[in-house]
Amino acid sequence: MKSDIEIAQSVQLKPITEIVEKVGITFDDIELYGKYKAKLSFDKIKAVQNNDAGKLVLVTAINPTPAGEGKSTMSIGLADALNKIGKKTMIALREPSLGPVMGIKGGAAGGGYAQVLPMEDINLHFTGDMHAITAANNALSALLDNHIQQGNELGIDQRRIIWKRVVDLNDRALRQVIVGLGSPVNGIPREDGFDITVASEIMAILCLATDLKDLKKRLANIVVAYTYDRQPVYVRDLKVEGALTLILKDAIKPNLVQTIYGTPALVHGGPFANIAHGCNSVLATTTALRLADYTITEAGFGADLGAEKFLDIKTPNLPKSPDAVVIVATLRALKMHGGVAKTELGQENVEAVRNGFANLKRHVENIRKFGIPAVVAINEFISDTEAEIATLKELCAAIEVPVELASVWANGADGGIDLAHAVVDAVENGGADYKRLYSDEDSLEEKITKIVTEIYGGKAVQFGPKAKMQLKQFSEFGWDKLPVCMAKTQYSFSDNQFLLGAPEHFDITIREFVPKTGAGFIVALTGDVMTMPGLPKQPAALNMDVSEDGTAVGLF
Amino acid sequence: MKSDIEIAQSVQLKPITEIVEKVGITFDDIELYGKYKAKLSFDKIKAVQNNDAGKLVLVTAINPTPAGEGKSTMSIGLADALNKIGKKTMIALREPSLGPVMGIKGGAAGGGYAQVLPMEDINLHFTGDMHAITAANNALSALLDNHIQQGNELGIDQRRIIWKRVVDLNDRALRQVIVGLGSPVNGIPREDGFDITVASEIMAILCLATDLKDLKKRLANIVVAYTYDRQPVYVRDLKVEGALTLILKDAIKPNLVQTIYGTPALVHGGPFANIAHGCNSVLATTTALRLADYTITEAGFGADLGAEKFLDIKTPNLPKSPDAVVIVATLRALKMHGGVAKTELGQENVEAVRNGFANLKRHVENIRKFGIPAVVAINEFISDTEAEIATLKELCAAIEVPVELASVWANGADGGIDLAHAVVDAVENGGADYKRLYSDEDSLEEKITKIVTEIYGGKAVQFGPKAKMQLKQFSEFGWDKLPVCMAKTQYSFSDNQFLLGAPEHFDITIREFVPKTGAGFIVALTGDVMTMPGLPKQPAALNMDVSEDGTAVGLF
Repeated sequence: MKSDIEIAQSVQLKPITEIVEKVGITFDDIELYGKYKAKLSFDKIKAVQNNDAGKLVLVTAINPTPAGEGKSTMSIGLADALNKIGKKTMIALREPSLGPVMGIKGGAAGGGYAQVLPMEDINLHFTGDMHAITAANNALSALLDNHIQQGNELGIDQRRIIWKRVVDLNDRALRQVIVGLGSPVNGIPREDGFDITVASEIMAILCLATDLKDLKKRLANIVVAYTYDRQPVYVRDLKVEGALTLILKDAIKPNLVQTIYGTPALVHGGPFANIAHGCNSVLATTTALRLADYTITEAGFGADLGAEKFLDIKTPNLPKSPDAVVIVATLRALKMHGGVAKTELGQENVEAVRNGFANLKRHVENIRKFGIPAVVAINEFISDTEAEIATLKELCAAIEVPVELASVWANGADGGIDLAHAVVDAVENGGADYKRLYSDEDSLEEKITKIVTEIYGGKAVQFGPKAKMQLKQFSEFGWDKLPVCMAKTQYSFSDNQFLLGAPEHFDITIREFVPKTGAGFIVALTGDVMTMPGLPKQPAALNMDVSEDGTAVGLF
Repeated sequence: MKSDIEIAQSVQLKPITEIVEKVGITFDDIELYGKYKAKLSFDKIKAVQNNDAGKLVLVTAINPTPAGEGKSTMSIGLADALNKIGKKTMIALREPSLGPVMGIKGGAAGGGYAQVLPMEDINLHFTGDMHAITAANNALSALLDNHIQQGNELGIDQRRIIWKRVVDLNDRALRQVIVGLGSPVNGIPREDGFDITVASEIMAILCLATDLKDLKKRLANIVVAYTYDRQPVYVRDLKVEGALTLILKDAIKPNLVQTIYGTPALVHGGPFANIAHGCNSVLATTTALRLADYTITEAGFGADLGAEKFLDIKTPNLPKSPDAVVIVATLRALKMHGGVAKTELGQENVEAVRNGFANLKRHVENIRKFGIPAVVAINEFISDTEAEIATLKELCAAIEVPVELASVWANGADGGIDLAHAVVDAVENGGADYKRLYSDEDSLEEKITKIVTEIYGGKAVQFGPKAKMQLKQFSEFGWDKLPVCMAKTQYSFSDNQFLLGAPEHFDITIREFVPKTGAGFIVALTGDVMTMPGLPKQPAALNMDVSEDGTAVGLF
């Protein structure tokens, strides 16, 4: 069986200029990065801003399990299949972070015959967006520490700096550090830490900004610290939002690439789905909507986190809401939700499918609460049995949700034709009528309570002592009208990662809030959230190489 | 008077494809990064490897003073002037680091009417080389710390790790840090520090590597730490040279841009000139030599550091040695070397020119020791007087060195015509006969002694206690046959920055050695060397911005 990189390298790519012609983009509208990557110009984005928006399809999933779902692969395969049945389709996806690529085998450019290309470049430096975000984030840190060093006019309390540095690597040793040691000329010694770049608020901002002006406004609104008298210090107080915007002036432009089947793909931005909203950029999705008849996009983690944030945080920034939501599942994963251990997944277990369906069912019901029709996509595995498939179809029929098997990993566009037809039907006849779950005017407590009771299926919300104090503070600072971004385990509807299926009667405890006033949301932490991954004992890096002619080897 | 960025933005750039056609590079030979930047393909580099090399001209300077010299500006203007008088000329320069750009006003893309363009991009992310080097450097750090965390099979002594992390910023707070705090899962607490990216050994390696294979070999040879029994640990012991080479596979390709006058310019690599060798990449210089009749290149700091390293470290990796060396000076700087304070430079002072000439004279003599003809280029200032100029010409005539005034900052190519003719004359009639100062077989003490007595004009070399111990160790490790890279103040021939002019009878003390076995040289430290600059009280970042259409504002 061919590996992802072998499949990718066997494809004869077309020049990106030729690919994007299909959606009316010319050579003058783009800046090439090599022959197969490009950035879209501001002029073109502006030129199409009054175009009618096409149809929008969001791809999400059940709660992830070690059995895997294949959300990106399904998104890419669905887009290829839609093009194949005659719908002019674009795809809008997140771009990968270098850290996990060097750590654990696995990229974020799809898999098998449903990949975006050139996967080597996309998984390495791509067009430099991650590096620009890293540079902007750390320039802000350096300027902040320098402000304190040079007299601290703003009265910043160095014990209350909340802005952290970042690297685009898995580097556990940088999670907690002390900086400013050694000499008075080296600054004020203080505790600090590094997050991975995708966890930077600047990534979230880049993905929500609608243009350079909005980008600068959001950057100016970042809270970096508090003063000795406990007042927030914003980037605008440091007067460096112009410099940060300058560093990001190209990173904000959407990147154009192609799938194996030549579908034009916008791959742009990639914020975390716990401490951020987990979707590709608003600019990319918006532009795709204005260029194509169908836009396929994706949200991180399961639908409880990713889709909820897409619909409550990202959608208000888009020209339109989704016309349908595809929920990806595998029979293997449903069996895990039904109580089967990972080692037993190879055996038929209809009862476990029946039990595990509870997880999928709740996600379908949740999507319907937003007024949007759901379609279930089963990512086929060789181990799926007839009886299991029949059971799942029967269960889906009982709740009147369309379900289709798709084999896009193995068969590319051909493997997604049935799904494509089901999606078109849902889009055209599903009667989408988007309703946001909460309103900005709701208090933070009300917003969180709605998410916990209506989406997670929990009983109530508890607020820890620190969170209670912050609720009061944030209201004083005028931050309580912002949307909420939940940071919760992706593995369960609850805040206990081991409660699979569809747990009930649980409480969610909010330990702490983190203001992301630049991005424009308040993060609610339900537990420890890992914002800097570590490397495994045998990092993927040990198998990587490059041939003498420059071909990537062993990337995955 | 127009600022550099205003001049740059007033120029109508030509597509880079059109620029490089002049030297036989076609669209298929390059990878575009936007319309005005490109990387040269390995295929093209290989295709021209048997071409005859053209003429090589190295631009260097007297010891720098706060009055400024304008080495990059002179290099660019000289190349433009050579093209104007009918010589097919390319330029091979270093690329700038983002840190100083955000810190103190001033980029590294030339100035006035002698600039490489697009200066905004070149001074910001350019084609991402710096970011790739940062990522490779820090991936190595993360992999090293992870090796220790995951069992430390190699027996690395965490107190003896010499590999530091980097950021491409001026960030004093990161000079000395403690990492690995907070929890056993966060690694082993230890002291660490961050250098600026251009100080990374990986930058030096990238600039000396002749192809991907050589790059990987050099990366494998980096010493990162010592074991508990004091043996060196190399990158090859960690088995990550393949991954690091993969991260650098595009960064190693030379970047193509243009000057204001349309001269094709290779701007690639930018190592420090103290703890590294301070020249642009071997690949860029070599390729320029094979494509053009004349190649103008530059070395960092004054000729005592930059030219010596160019001739003793870089030249053995080039297809040919320089045919002429241009030494840049200003009358203002000569007056400072002659004892005049910065505030008094506006006044005529012939005697000071006469005294300060001693500095220039020693550099001319040094270049001749390498068997290469020297040409003096005076970067004209409005404050230069007739009497001062006449005195300098008379002094130059006495030592038979050609001298020309050049006004390339104000007048571009036209301002460098006389200089161009003088350079052509030196190249064609100067009888260059390159001799390296020392041989690899000389011991480290002998190499340093030759540099100090023959180039610096000093009396003798003292070795401190640590350096003495290291000389013994390095000989055991087989590192004593490597060239020496002197880390000394750039402001004086001596190791005391306040001794201007041409000091004599001084000793140089070597405090410590740093093995750069990947780059292939041993750094000799004569004092504290700053490898992470700080930001000033009013960083340049405070004035930076970007307009709504994406135009850089206030960059310089």
